[in-house]
Amino acid sequence: MLALSAALFCLPVAQAQSERFNVVYVMTDDQAPWTMGAYGNRESITPNMDRIAKEGALFRNAFTVTPVCSPSRVGFLTGLYGTQVGITDWIAPNEDAAGLGLPATATTWPAVLQKQGYRTALIGKWHLGSTPAFHPTKRGFDHFYGFLGGGNTPLDPTLEVNGKETKLKGSLPDLLTDDAMRFVEANKAKPFALVLHFRAPHTPYAPVPPEDSEPFKNLDPTIPTFKGLDVQQTKRFYREYYASVHSVDRNLGRLLAQLDQLDLTRRTIVIFASDHGYNIGQHGIHTKGNGFWMLGGANGPKRPNMWDTSLRIPLLVRWPGVIKAGSEITEAVTNLDLLPSILGMLRVAMSQSSQQNGLDFAPLLRGEKVAAWRDAVYGQYDLHNGGLAYMRMIRTSDWKLIRHHHENQMDELYDLKNDPDEARNLYNNAQHAKTRNELQNKLTSWQRSIGDPLTKEKSRLITGQ
Amino acid sequence: MLALSAALFCLPVAQAQSERFNVVYVMTDDQAPWTMGAYGNRESITPNMDRIAKEGALFRNAFTVTPVCSPSRVGFLTGLYGTQVGITDWIAPNEDAAGLGLPATATTWPAVLQKQGYRTALIGKWHLGSTPAFHPTKRGFDHFYGFLGGGNTPLDPTLEVNGKETKLKGSLPDLLTDDAMRFVEANKAKPFALVLHFRAPHTPYAPVPPEDSEPFKNLDPTIPTFKGLDVQQTKRFYREYYASVHSVDRNLGRLLAQLDQLDLTRRTIVIFASDHGYNIGQHGIHTKGNGFWMLGGANGPKRPNMWDTSLRIPLLVRWPGVIKAGSEITEAVTNLDLLPSILGMLRVAMSQSSQQNGLDFAPLLRGEKVAAWRDAVYGQYDLHNGGLAYMRMIRTSDWKLIRHHHENQMDELYDLKNDPDEARNLYNNAQHAKTRNELQNKLTSWQRSIGDPLTKEKSRLITGQ
Repeated sequence: MLALSAALFCLPVAQAQSERFNVVYVMTDDQAPWTMGAYGNRESITPNMDRIAKEGALFRNAFTVTPVCSPSRVGFLTGLYGTQVGITDWIAPNEDAAGLGLPATATTWPAVLQKQGYRTALIGKWHLGSTPAFHPTKRGFDHFYGFLGGGNTPLDPTLEVNGKETKLKGSLPDLLTDDAMRFVEANKAKPFALVLHFRAPHTPYAPVPPEDSEPFKNLDPTIPTFKGLDVQQTKRFYREYYASVHSVDRNLGRLLAQLDQLDLTRRTIVIFASDHGYNIGQHGIHTKGNGFWMLGGANGPKRPNMWDTSLRIPLLVRWPGVIKAGSEITEAVTNLDLLPSILGMLRVAMSQSSQQNGLDFAPLLRGEKVAAWRDAVYGQYDLHNGGLAYMRMIRTSDWKLIRHHHENQMDELYDLKNDPDEARNLYNNAQHAKTRNELQNKLTSWQRSIGDPLTKEKSRLITGQ
Repeated sequence: MLALSAALFCLPVAQAQSERFNVVYVMTDDQAPWTMGAYGNRESITPNMDRIAKEGALFRNAFTVTPVCSPSRVGFLTGLYGTQVGITDWIAPNEDAAGLGLPATATTWPAVLQKQGYRTALIGKWHLGSTPAFHPTKRGFDHFYGFLGGGNTPLDPTLEVNGKETKLKGSLPDLLTDDAMRFVEANKAKPFALVLHFRAPHTPYAPVPPEDSEPFKNLDPTIPTFKGLDVQQTKRFYREYYASVHSVDRNLGRLLAQLDQLDLTRRTIVIFASDHGYNIGQHGIHTKGNGFWMLGGANGPKRPNMWDTSLRIPLLVRWPGVIKAGSEITEAVTNLDLLPSILGMLRVAMSQSSQQNGLDFAPLLRGEKVAAWRDAVYGQYDLHNGGLAYMRMIRTSDWKLIRHHHENQMDELYDLKNDPDEARNLYNNAQHAKTRNELQNKLTSWQRSIGDPLTKEKSRLITGQ
């Protein structure tokens, strides 16, 4: 546990109910920051996401510590690393059936708020265990409407509604937003925390309602330059991906409008994020940290990776009356920071026994001077679904070291200052051995500090790696 | 140790020197059987390889148990699996420098013959340890001319000559064959065992002498049909690959002619093999069990595999006066069978304490009835260079099961009878669960029988795999 979380315990007890901010936490699935107008995209259409940035703060350097669904969600909800709860890759159906899920020992921030009198809801994707013991209602949510596994279809999905699997008609993001709006309407007089986990823009991108696909029908999208990309396929993916992002944005607009109409905007913190970054052709791959080779228009083998394109997440926070509209925050934050930060914004303390690894970025949002922020982000990804890798990463503002444990010749070192696209691996470049070793030392210390299982294992390579 | 090797000890002691056959064992690097006229290729030009088949026997079902260089060579020379000597992937330069190599406890068949009075030579590639303790002259070879590591260049190579690194001029296969012919000439009066390990047709395919490249200059080669292949690149690879194969074949012709001229043909067993199979576009990959995705003309991530295209090796044996010319042997044999078979052909016994896993196929060559041959081939590949996989395989004439340990969703089951190209993975097909389970049971028993380290490790997956 970091020193900072101790500081939380010193905060004043929860404020009077009338003063309390609501929380609307919206998270998309597989949405890279580069899909968003606020992050500079001029082809994607995201006026409502952009509105949050315009009225609040945009994080310029927000990262997930694990670039795949389930462990990233563990981090967002609990401030814990995947290895700390035994969830190191997306939970595959057979693992799910075998009883993998978020353990009760991990405290979610909605559970903390629930104890403080907040009405809490998870609407949308869970993907942290489907067997009954892991149900969202056992992890801090009063209300659940959505799906427990990882997958669903963008149209006519089957969702759990009032505890029952129900086949529904319509667009998934619309259905989820409908329920979110019902929840807001029903709880408008109380403090509430709404967690809305869209499945979009995860594959399959299509079908989406015509109003979401039409704007991109004739778009000739800008795509990455990478030798061997099937240009037509890639462009089609971009059009479909942007349409799926639009299906979220349009629904986000409905929700924001409702907050306006109910006069809740001024006392509701709105947070918008995605679970990790995304690649469509960047580095020759499709999807995320477990992205697969897409050259030649095929689904090739996975390239386990911790490139920035997979790690960087969009993160926007609107906090009326506190955040200066249009703020930009450049400090490096991670998905693990959400728990201490949401609690920090609300000045709610966690129980002394709860452990987490994040930093409270609420002071940054308040515009306070923060003497010492983190100088490095650490990451981990034990990939075992459809491939195999044991990656550990340290990223400073200038450098990134990625170690592929139990593997030879796969370690990576990037000079982010001079090579932001991470195209030149300098791991074996003698000129940078000192930098590499310094990063390695910090990485190893961090691994020990979080009880990383890899530090307890003997290497299987004779090279001593 | 299999029961069969015990049988070897009952054979008569070595025959009188005058009656003894010489052994010329020629092995290429990365040469698939499909490159050879004898195996049905009408575009490649291999009259000398074909001659061995025509005058001897062609094995229709010969496999390596590990489809990558170093462990396959362990098997060919010692009858041991890679895991039994700690060499499970090709020996990378850093592993080599750290002291990985073929341990002295492993007995090579040339070492056995050396003790029986044979003059032995390794000419060409070793790749079983470069540090002095692992030198070929410490593993059964009187003479060594070649290179200790895995790599070299087809033109003007640096070779170890009389114990000294020497920069030479000329084509590598020609230089190696020159030395092989010097060795034969010098030892024509004694029984000798010549092991000639060509580096060709390993990448880089070019440059080769014009006489090897010219015949393919205008060839429009037949290439695999695989969506996304860069057709022009693939065809260029085929032309270059065939030219490299030709550079071996031409030199093989020189060596065979020398045996004829010296009247050694009638008392020399000639064996021709390659260390494993090869893919240029088959399954979308380039190279072997650690093949990488080649679609879109790029070098994508590895696809660890044990497909037949990677496992099948060419294997030809000429044994004048014993093998009926033009024989075809359909029994499944492996690279581990070479040790007991060469010793079996020469009726030389191994020491009682030596362990090996192969079967003696000499009786098949003699045309004897063999009551019970193996009904399955087992394979293993712990890949850690440039990727990560722990594969185990069982292959019967009709089915193949490949398990990817520590991984989820990568296991493979192929119906070889109906799907010889291994295009349809039936692992999760309930209809074939019984077959899968039967194969799994046999595979597990085999793993235990060879002391497979994986059987002693706890699975890292919650699914119980």
